[in-house]
Amino acid sequence: MSETFLSPQQVVELFKWRYATKTFDTSKKISDADWKAIEECLVLTPSSFGLQPWKFFVVDNPETRKELLANSWNQVQVVDASHLVVLAIKTDVNDGDVDRYLQSTMDARQVTAESLEGFGKVMKGFLANPKLDKGAWAEKQVYIALGQLMSAVAVMGIDACPMEGFNPVKYDEILGLTAKGYRSVLVCPVGYRSDSDKYATAAKVRYSVEAMVEHL
Amino acid sequence: MSETFLSPQQVVELFKWRYATKTFDTSKKISDADWKAIEECLVLTPSSFGLQPWKFFVVDNPETRKELLANSWNQVQVVDASHLVVLAIKTDVNDGDVDRYLQSTMDARQVTAESLEGFGKVMKGFLANPKLDKGAWAEKQVYIALGQLMSAVAVMGIDACPMEGFNPVKYDEILGLTAKGYRSVLVCPVGYRSDSDKYATAAKVRYSVEAMVEHL
Repeated sequence: MSETFLSPQQVVELFKWRYATKTFDTSKKISDADWKAIEECLVLTPSSFGLQPWKFFVVDNPETRKELLANSWNQVQVVDASHLVVLAIKTDVNDGDVDRYLQSTMDARQVTAESLEGFGKVMKGFLANPKLDKGAWAEKQVYIALGQLMSAVAVMGIDACPMEGFNPVKYDEILGLTAKGYRSVLVCPVGYRSDSDKYATAAKVRYSVEAMVEHL
Repeated sequence: MSETFLSPQQVVELFKWRYATKTFDTSKKISDADWKAIEECLVLTPSSFGLQPWKFFVVDNPETRKELLANSWNQVQVVDASHLVVLAIKTDVNDGDVDRYLQSTMDARQVTAESLEGFGKVMKGFLANPKLDKGAWAEKQVYIALGQLMSAVAVMGIDACPMEGFNPVKYDEILGLTAKGYRSVLVCPVGYRSDSDKYATAAKVRYSVEAMVEHL
């Protein structure tokens, strides 16, 4: 093991450095090796039960990105950023997903199906609860992935712009997600800030720690 | 500026190092200076419009933590971890919150109320939309905060255990959150893993990048 950690104070500096980048430098591309690592960071996101009810779509085709732009309130980050990630949930999370996950656990940990039987029942019972809004539950998990993605790239000195402001129905249509069994929830352009982005130096607007954290 | 960044490959190693810690070392406390920085990281979490519809409660009182334990499926992390964070949303996000946020923006950026008028209208219109489930919207934002918290402490070499498995109604009662206008959504014990936690070395169960990331 040879992990390199940062001090908590260094991480604070990095989270102050990050901001929702409005203007990306169109001439700067994230290298293939770095992008591969960013994809790994996304996939390592923790989720409820570990079920990973999501898929991440990276839109490389410039023509497709132009089509998405028109359905993103013309926020140019969608076409200007080095990479564009659409974070989607599986439309119907069901017992098949639990079984697939149990198989994945058996493969990774070399354990028996019997040893996971109780865990499988808990998950299937959870999904079968009529009070559960499965879509909302899966959406929330994707917000963890967004948090992990934004934090990860900030720590690398790479910029991102989390976006809820887009037309998910149109996105699903343009990207063919419905047919694949997925539904878009969040969009995140990733790349490098332009020197001309005035938001980069604007004061961050956050309530104070004193206002937002209470000790009990 | 003197930010220290990590390489994308280093961040991948750190996200592999992190895991949902089940057994914390009860003898290890996070130092006050480090904990203060972790609170800052939480408060720096980005949110929809920047509205920060949340509050973070840190439960210091050991007796209170024991009470919470009984409402957390007896997951001992709740009492064993150095610190316990309850991530909560404001029960009713309303126009007053928008006004408070606009004031905070004026203060931070030295801009006029007039320059923010349009932005304020957009936010109030968003909150007034009868189709919006405000609670669900605020809950999702708190999942970003959880993602940011987990990523942040991982990068610092500090452990955490994200938890949805607790009784929020009981938590709200025990911590008096309802009276304060908040509702608990997520719990996150933070501290240092015990040498005896067998989960620390268990293989991580994640689908492959090839299965979870698709280029279009």
